[in-house]
Amino acid sequence: MNAFQFVNPTRIVFGEGAAAQIGELVRPFGSRVLLVYGSGSIKRSGLYDRTLETLVQAGVTVHELAGVEPNPRLTTVNRGIALCREHEIEFILAVGGGSVIDAAKAIAAGVKYDGDVWDFFVGKASVQGALPLGTILTLAATGSEMNGSGVITHWEEKLKRGFGSIHVYPRFSILDPTLTYTVPRDHTVNGIVDIMSHVFEQYFSLTENTPLQERLCESVLQTVIENADPVLANPEDPAARGNLMWCGTVALNGGFISVGMQNDWATHMIEHEVSAVYDIPHGAGLAVLFPNWMSYVYSSRVSRFVQYAERVWGIDRAGRTDEEVAVAGIEATRDFFTRIGAPSRLADFGIGEEHLDRMADEAVRYGAIGSFKKLEQADVRRILELSL
Amino acid sequence: MNAFQFVNPTRIVFGEGAAAQIGELVRPFGSRVLLVYGSGSIKRSGLYDRTLETLVQAGVTVHELAGVEPNPRLTTVNRGIALCREHEIEFILAVGGGSVIDAAKAIAAGVKYDGDVWDFFVGKASVQGALPLGTILTLAATGSEMNGSGVITHWEEKLKRGFGSIHVYPRFSILDPTLTYTVPRDHTVNGIVDIMSHVFEQYFSLTENTPLQERLCESVLQTVIENADPVLANPEDPAARGNLMWCGTVALNGGFISVGMQNDWATHMIEHEVSAVYDIPHGAGLAVLFPNWMSYVYSSRVSRFVQYAERVWGIDRAGRTDEEVAVAGIEATRDFFTRIGAPSRLADFGIGEEHLDRMADEAVRYGAIGSFKKLEQADVRRILELSL
Repeated sequence: MNAFQFVNPTRIVFGEGAAAQIGELVRPFGSRVLLVYGSGSIKRSGLYDRTLETLVQAGVTVHELAGVEPNPRLTTVNRGIALCREHEIEFILAVGGGSVIDAAKAIAAGVKYDGDVWDFFVGKASVQGALPLGTILTLAATGSEMNGSGVITHWEEKLKRGFGSIHVYPRFSILDPTLTYTVPRDHTVNGIVDIMSHVFEQYFSLTENTPLQERLCESVLQTVIENADPVLANPEDPAARGNLMWCGTVALNGGFISVGMQNDWATHMIEHEVSAVYDIPHGAGLAVLFPNWMSYVYSSRVSRFVQYAERVWGIDRAGRTDEEVAVAGIEATRDFFTRIGAPSRLADFGIGEEHLDRMADEAVRYGAIGSFKKLEQADVRRILELSL
Repeated sequence: MNAFQFVNPTRIVFGEGAAAQIGELVRPFGSRVLLVYGSGSIKRSGLYDRTLETLVQAGVTVHELAGVEPNPRLTTVNRGIALCREHEIEFILAVGGGSVIDAAKAIAAGVKYDGDVWDFFVGKASVQGALPLGTILTLAATGSEMNGSGVITHWEEKLKRGFGSIHVYPRFSILDPTLTYTVPRDHTVNGIVDIMSHVFEQYFSLTENTPLQERLCESVLQTVIENADPVLANPEDPAARGNLMWCGTVALNGGFISVGMQNDWATHMIEHEVSAVYDIPHGAGLAVLFPNWMSYVYSSRVSRFVQYAERVWGIDRAGRTDEEVAVAGIEATRDFFTRIGAPSRLADFGIGEEHLDRMADEAVRYGAIGSFKKLEQADVRRILELSL
């Protein structure tokens, strides 16, 4: 186990009807709020009206930034920053999934910064402060509701980049599983893949002596897997939706499940390059890439993949070599993703060889990526090829 | 899963040599610090000198409260409150195990309260504010380093009571596993039992649909069990000491592993009555009581004890009834405690039948205790009898 620091100041308010508390949760932060949301599904579900009504009752003036994209764009973030400055916003409320929350975080940090907010994403500046923000989560996926990270796309430059800061942890996040009942099937599937992928990035690590962390990771994976079928069979299953939602948060709540472990994150970086060019859903890209990344890297530490196969997928070692067990675990992952309806090939999105070089170049722009196995340009290109 | 709120503001600084950061961690809170510690083991280990030197270098004036008891007493807490007022203390630094930290929490809350600090422990008042506090942990056991609870003994009245508040979460806790190398064997054993007991209080629950929480609990238990022998065989095993330390924190970090689950805590309440009369070590009391509590209550939800037996102890169900599997898991617990050298009978402390009624009466002073099975006076008395 490596030395580490951990702190996570986000308050979680979990349960059916929790969003009714939004007025009292927001009010201490001020009376001028920017409400950030996406395509309008919160209007169809009635959540928008209920939220607005509760906020107004609490004496809050609400301004709005609507239309945050699934891969949220820098232009949208800049619109939000301008709105905050124009209306002297005191608090940002993100209502949606990870994209909406990530956009809100970038806006919150950008408002307090004199330069171009994109500076945070290319290492030119670090966040020194931010407007306080809170969230009402409507999708179990990114964990953004309880961490200090966000990913934004600079569409014109075809760049998708992340940033992080203690200043952009949500002050509170409302997790009401019933708000995810109306999430379409493909978004639910992508969320499942996203949650599992976040755990993979932490769990497949070369750090020695992290038995508790490994078990916490395995716990999240097992629970996601066993709740996937119930959620897909009945999107209004309160128990399964609740379990999935809490798994999504625990999977990436500031790195709690993997403190003291070196993380990898190469697959996310590769996926970001694919999304930046093709604008495909993040979870869908991960479903395609992760099994191929696994096949490409597992020999770096076969024992971790053997453990994964045994503990997460219940694969019996009897009569098999370690390598065979490891491969069986990877195949179980691939089969699971396919079975729940996730894509398995980039071709499913009409992606061919056209931009492989560009994506591989861009992925290693700042040097080799990953830590489980360090990936150079040729490695990234090969993983992309395997994914075509 | 029940509705819940969770927030835990404590910053963890984990790793060998982390205590060297104490100056910079304390300084933002002020320049007048009360250093709280116990019997002097930190003087023998050199930690006292190093801490003092670092604090003085950081420009901090240090006052001291030494001699906090293993079951910390109200009189000591009151001495600390008086010291804080006399010297206008701005920050409390607890260096020690759970007793020292619990005393520091009570002092921190008491300083900001005009009445008798004991009011917090008997439900006469709730904490409205507290001096900020931090900790340097020297014992893996109570989890007090990352939660807002504390237990104090009113020795003259033979009462041991707990309190809790968001205001007394440590602002930071330094976890350096090497600081636990010199912990005596019996304290190490008691710490192991204490950590496991904290998980038991959360895990044996009637709440439905908490699969992730159950697995997180099992993860802590399994990791403690597998690190017990290495730590006892080699008290300076950095890996095992580190794992044990982190397990202790995770086991009770504000209830993270059991959010949305009804907890039990009856066994702790019974142990508090035993300690209040006989001043035995908390972990030792729990080692005696917990297997007997388990035997007494398991039929309330046999399936949870079956799961415990299978997942934590690897007990094979084949050819056994559920009841037999459950009992085998309880016996495995008892055997483990005995094997690592924990006491198994109250008689080991010279405790007989003299005060059983008093202890049982006092345990249910505010009504039946526990939730897995509600225990009345006669139930508590029976568990105590089984433990003689």
